[in-house]
Amino acid sequence: MRILGIDPGLGITGFGVIDADAGSMKLVAVGDIRPPRKDSLPERLAFLKNALSRHIRQNQPEIAVLERVFTHYRHVTTAAKMAHARGAVCLAVQEHGIELIEYLPTRVKHAVTGKGNASKQQVASMVGQWIHVSDASWSFDATDALALAIAHAHILESPAGLRG
Amino acid sequence: MRILGIDPGLGITGFGVIDADAGSMKLVAVGDIRPPRKDSLPERLAFLKNALSRHIRQNQPEIAVLERVFTHYRHVTTAAKMAHARGAVCLAVQEHGIELIEYLPTRVKHAVTGKGNASKQQVASMVGQWIHVSDASWSFDATDALALAIAHAHILESPAGLRG
Repeated sequence: MRILGIDPGLGITGFGVIDADAGSMKLVAVGDIRPPRKDSLPERLAFLKNALSRHIRQNQPEIAVLERVFTHYRHVTTAAKMAHARGAVCLAVQEHGIELIEYLPTRVKHAVTGKGNASKQQVASMVGQWIHVSDASWSFDATDALALAIAHAHILESPAGLRG
Repeated sequence: MRILGIDPGLGITGFGVIDADAGSMKLVAVGDIRPPRKDSLPERLAFLKNALSRHIRQNQPEIAVLERVFTHYRHVTTAAKMAHARGAVCLAVQEHGIELIEYLPTRVKHAVTGKGNASKQQVASMVGQWIHVSDASWSFDATDALALAIAHAHILESPAGLRG
């Protein structure tokens, strides 16, 4: 199964695509989308949506995975900025007819590292181990996106009783 | 000038279109967009974006007006839900090549009612007076959207020194 993880942000949206099959995982694509900061909000959202659509067409994922909640945003303005980007991401996924699934951040961290409160560094390090490749130039947005895809692969392959 | 005001929400998005010319204002279109609540988030965002695009094509506004900020949302989750919808609205506007302008809520209320802290009822009542028509069935989402369009008409026609 080809899985797309996405970590949406107005400044940087990370994405990662993996192939998961019988416990083995392979990196397909990874990167960031960075809409020009000088552009207007509508322009940045269109840039993000178009770039993500391009990656979806190129990589043909079967499912897209996002974080479920916003509790880690302390400020209303920060949450609102991110959610504009998340709306654009949802629309790109919807237009390609791909199923979208959401997991709580703690569930993703636990599936990838064994610890629900792992740091971004720990997540990035374990991501590299799961897909047998890593690159110091990857942003935390990109490794967080890969972590979402990897977590979904794990949860899919867990005995049904563990899927929660 | 034909002006579109939009009050985005995931549950209800109000919209209102007016023609403003030399101090006179005329209602062109008003209504709500209500994506089915049983649908998934991506489906609701696509419903909203498609419905708004249809109204833009039908009414051909030259400019779209939104509220600028989120300070009236106390909760991160509420702000994030609204901002998903606002992202979809921005994308619809952007795809039609229409300029988007944003005003602070207090500025809109002041332009429409003379009071920066007017209630939704007071805004709705003054909206009816400005466009010489009103309908008790209009939601506050719809009248707030009309208020945005009316405020922009006022600000456009103010002496430059008052535009702020």
